[in-house]
Amino acid sequence: MSDTTGKVITCKAAVCWGAGEPLKIEEVEVDPPRAHEVRIRILYTGICHTDEYTRSGKDPEGAFPVILGHEGGGIVESIGEGVTSVSVGDHVIPLYTAECRECKFCKSGKTNLCGSVRATQGAGLMPDKTKRFRCKGQDIFHFMGTSTFSQYTVVADVSVVAVNPKAPLEKVCLLGCGITTAWGAVMKQPGIKDSTVAVFGCGAIGLGVISTAALVGASKVIAVDTNPGKESWARKFGAHEFINPTTLPEGKKIQDHLVEITDGGLDFTFDCTGNVHVMRAALEACHKGWGVSTVIGVAAAGQEISTRPFQLVTGRVWRGSAFGGVKGRTEIPGLVEDYLQGKMRIDDYVTHERKFSEINEGFHDMHAGDCIRCVVDMS
Amino acid sequence: MSDTTGKVITCKAAVCWGAGEPLKIEEVEVDPPRAHEVRIRILYTGICHTDEYTRSGKDPEGAFPVILGHEGGGIVESIGEGVTSVSVGDHVIPLYTAECRECKFCKSGKTNLCGSVRATQGAGLMPDKTKRFRCKGQDIFHFMGTSTFSQYTVVADVSVVAVNPKAPLEKVCLLGCGITTAWGAVMKQPGIKDSTVAVFGCGAIGLGVISTAALVGASKVIAVDTNPGKESWARKFGAHEFINPTTLPEGKKIQDHLVEITDGGLDFTFDCTGNVHVMRAALEACHKGWGVSTVIGVAAAGQEISTRPFQLVTGRVWRGSAFGGVKGRTEIPGLVEDYLQGKMRIDDYVTHERKFSEINEGFHDMHAGDCIRCVVDMS
Repeated sequence: MSDTTGKVITCKAAVCWGAGEPLKIEEVEVDPPRAHEVRIRILYTGICHTDEYTRSGKDPEGAFPVILGHEGGGIVESIGEGVTSVSVGDHVIPLYTAECRECKFCKSGKTNLCGSVRATQGAGLMPDKTKRFRCKGQDIFHFMGTSTFSQYTVVADVSVVAVNPKAPLEKVCLLGCGITTAWGAVMKQPGIKDSTVAVFGCGAIGLGVISTAALVGASKVIAVDTNPGKESWARKFGAHEFINPTTLPEGKKIQDHLVEITDGGLDFTFDCTGNVHVMRAALEACHKGWGVSTVIGVAAAGQEISTRPFQLVTGRVWRGSAFGGVKGRTEIPGLVEDYLQGKMRIDDYVTHERKFSEINEGFHDMHAGDCIRCVVDMS
Repeated sequence: MSDTTGKVITCKAAVCWGAGEPLKIEEVEVDPPRAHEVRIRILYTGICHTDEYTRSGKDPEGAFPVILGHEGGGIVESIGEGVTSVSVGDHVIPLYTAECRECKFCKSGKTNLCGSVRATQGAGLMPDKTKRFRCKGQDIFHFMGTSTFSQYTVVADVSVVAVNPKAPLEKVCLLGCGITTAWGAVMKQPGIKDSTVAVFGCGAIGLGVISTAALVGASKVIAVDTNPGKESWARKFGAHEFINPTTLPEGKKIQDHLVEITDGGLDFTFDCTGNVHVMRAALEACHKGWGVSTVIGVAAAGQEISTRPFQLVTGRVWRGSAFGGVKGRTEIPGLVEDYLQGKMRIDDYVTHERKFSEINEGFHDMHAGDCIRCVVDMS
């Protein structure tokens, strides 16, 4: 029991006051957790493209002012009434994909998309439809149920998981989004072993897909990215080939090229770009009769994917994956153990480290071609 | 060995001389089968929308003059060198989806889309790139590898299957396309039992899907069609509910209505219309997290399906099915046995019967709302 239990905590948080504005480090007040809520001292957080998407104002559901961030690691400061899933002092990872184990979705055994806090989380609120952050007399919206760009945050008890405290939080915080997403997208897809795979986009997610596909035993992993600087990264993570679509002869589509060089197409493709045109290319690069294309990237609002239905009728499957299909509370502790045993790559993703005061620079890092993940030290 | 063996046969065929023209019954010459070919006396044939699609000129790959038809039943008249799969006198069903058992596709165990005769079949030719039909001194193109609108036709030996001669060919000819397509699309999709299903379009394919889903034990089968006359048909084939989208309040989308009345959407949906807008509705009517939508209908050339990628990322799967995923040579004999044992519904689909001389009327029948299948007596 810490001496802050039950009290409002004043700490620093990076507030985004409006669409398109840079983050501003502010003193914020963080309310104590209510029933079935957990207050967490965030020690480290990654920065992800989804944070930037909402910050930029492109997200039509973005509500401001807001505290962004969803790839964090921290320590439980206090818990509200009825919380049994974590205890004070636990090392934890907040989960933007909750796992209540009681809703229709959790019980289905078919999906990780828990419905318990979906509506309020999407609205930037806690499950009781209120907020826990205040700054300059104004309530601040939550983000993705996590808001890890604050030294203290409050999350629902279904949206947090305790992990082995031996694991360095400045590394395993990345399991809160990108790396887990990539890992799950491959691991939950049967048949990758001995199959051919193409991965579109070599950011953190793409590299995670490459790495996992190679680990599982794909016979060939082809990485595709328009940034030639990504070739060495892709190969380091396990890609056997790297193709830069901009170097193809004019008018040559990447999907047609891939179908040609793979005797009919890939067994599996993954879109890790969020670009709807790339999603189409990924589908159409699949082998007739059995190719499966998985959309992982998140497209901008209003954008649509399209293809000729013939692509599906002749045996290709178009599917998607959110948070890799991973149930966070059930599966992330095991991933942390895998990391500690050297079976899961995380350190290699961290190319940039920033102090909290430099969080805006961290966003700039992300746009630079040489950044895979930037981790922010919240102290 | 019949006395026509090795000789050119002169018989009647319905020739389509050009895009958009009605069929014309002509005297045609049918060459004897070459190596690995089979000449069949066609006794009955169904008429399918795909025949009309090519006849109408909408099919950009349509080659004229042509003998259409792909849903036939007949008796082997003679066989070419090297044919072992069928014998003279066998009752057979021509297969527009070949099964060679030797190509990459057949050997994959993952698809029924045999590649052995695909290219030549698509070009309206026999596998050796020549034709077997002549009329008025002109070569006539083959169609879908079957050309059942002729009293005699020649097919590749990988494109025909012998069935129990006790089965009436005027009924089981329909296994050459629609009924098998519908049956396979459901049977090859795991999980239909105890699940909810919506079927868009209540033509022969849609009714077949409804019938098979009900047979397999779907907990609820909802039929969707804009033709109110189809309600009694849908219910007769096993649908529990019928929805006419045109009767919904103005601006209400069928997918939104279905999601509402099914507490989140269907477990499985099937498009049996060929309309790309309906294909989208079928996908979006699926339940988040696990809904699977199968495209069976064939869209017009150049048309595209589209949706927000979010539909896939949140767990819906978009797939397709050609000839129901059925391997014709391996599986159709069993379907014929099922029919003979009363386990497979075929007779109910035959709403219209026509003499060969009335084949154009059969095409008109198809456009009438009260026609499920018209079978033509080729004698």
